[in-house]
Amino acid sequence: MKENLILYHYWRSSCSWRVRWALNHKNVKYTAKAVDLLAGEQNSAAFLAKNPFGYVPALETPAGVFGESLAILEWIEETYPKNPLLPSSSSDRLQIRQICQMIASGIQPIQNLSVMRRHSSDPVAQSEWGHHWIQKGFDKLELVVSKTAGTYCFGGTLTFADICLVPQVFNANRFKVDMDQYPTLKRINAHCLTLKACDAAAPHNQPGAC
Amino acid sequence: MKENLILYHYWRSSCSWRVRWALNHKNVKYTAKAVDLLAGEQNSAAFLAKNPFGYVPALETPAGVFGESLAILEWIEETYPKNPLLPSSSSDRLQIRQICQMIASGIQPIQNLSVMRRHSSDPVAQSEWGHHWIQKGFDKLELVVSKTAGTYCFGGTLTFADICLVPQVFNANRFKVDMDQYPTLKRINAHCLTLKACDAAAPHNQPGAC
Repeated sequence: MKENLILYHYWRSSCSWRVRWALNHKNVKYTAKAVDLLAGEQNSAAFLAKNPFGYVPALETPAGVFGESLAILEWIEETYPKNPLLPSSSSDRLQIRQICQMIASGIQPIQNLSVMRRHSSDPVAQSEWGHHWIQKGFDKLELVVSKTAGTYCFGGTLTFADICLVPQVFNANRFKVDMDQYPTLKRINAHCLTLKACDAAAPHNQPGAC
Repeated sequence: MKENLILYHYWRSSCSWRVRWALNHKNVKYTAKAVDLLAGEQNSAAFLAKNPFGYVPALETPAGVFGESLAILEWIEETYPKNPLLPSSSSDRLQIRQICQMIASGIQPIQNLSVMRRHSSDPVAQSEWGHHWIQKGFDKLELVVSKTAGTYCFGGTLTFADICLVPQVFNANRFKVDMDQYPTLKRINAHCLTLKACDAAAPHNQPGAC
């Protein structure tokens, strides 16, 4: 089935990876359109006409173009319930969404490029900033995930939590955070990277990656 | 019905306001326990024993203590479906959750106290930092919400989007962001503040407010 979905994304964006992975996991076909963030393409008139909030990832659905990766993940789960990424129990869903938000609100936004650049133009200070916030966030995340983990963040099944974790570990590695401090997170990440849907969505497998 | 819910919160925390308001709107009884963030009470042994991630808001449910306000809002909606805060259409839900994440991931975490303090110890630089990120976020939010708004952010019914917006406008006012730039957000905020469930959850109505 052709789904007529267009995903505006950037190869290195960790939030884009989340959406690519979820779509792959659900076997949902989509057309990927790269938006070159380093070249400022997200601020071009053509992109803003489609997507007035001017960021990626953004998903074009029959109802319009919408952004925010966690909002898109929830839509994907509701629209394509096969291969579920959330369990049916509300208290399980709460724990999974807590993990997602610890990453998607508590870590990623603070270490992203625009915030880092606003903090300082000095590459050393930028790097220290990213390292600090990921480390601080992972200190808490390891505590929480070590209580719920099986093969994955929440028991033995892939969920939204893993989809948020792995791209954040990718960023942690870029900032040279020592993942040996976080044995649970490190183990889950290594396992997820062996999954075809995750690997196909990974930065190094996107056109334009360098 | 006594629900046996305990909400750990702080009077001025905008994320705590979100949860208080949603519980009030659903007429769900809860016991509020104040955690004094300025005094560092979130790092006390007693609090960490309950809540190892050490932040507010956190909700104690029969299944345990969980944090992250947006995860808690979803749990509240699933557990207490009366007086819904999300519509049934997935594409409507996507648009509402997009608005929530634009605030809860895109604005609030960057302007919060710990990030501001890490950026600079100078109160003028801190204030400029908070002002910058709220203004930048609201520039985009006004564009998005002006397309979906009725009396509320999404049509004529209160949703999660309003519950995220109003506490963020409270922070905008603290940082002296000129809300006249955002006529849609300003109008929705003014209306919501007249709602009893919102007002009872507002910072000035919490014990310990100053």
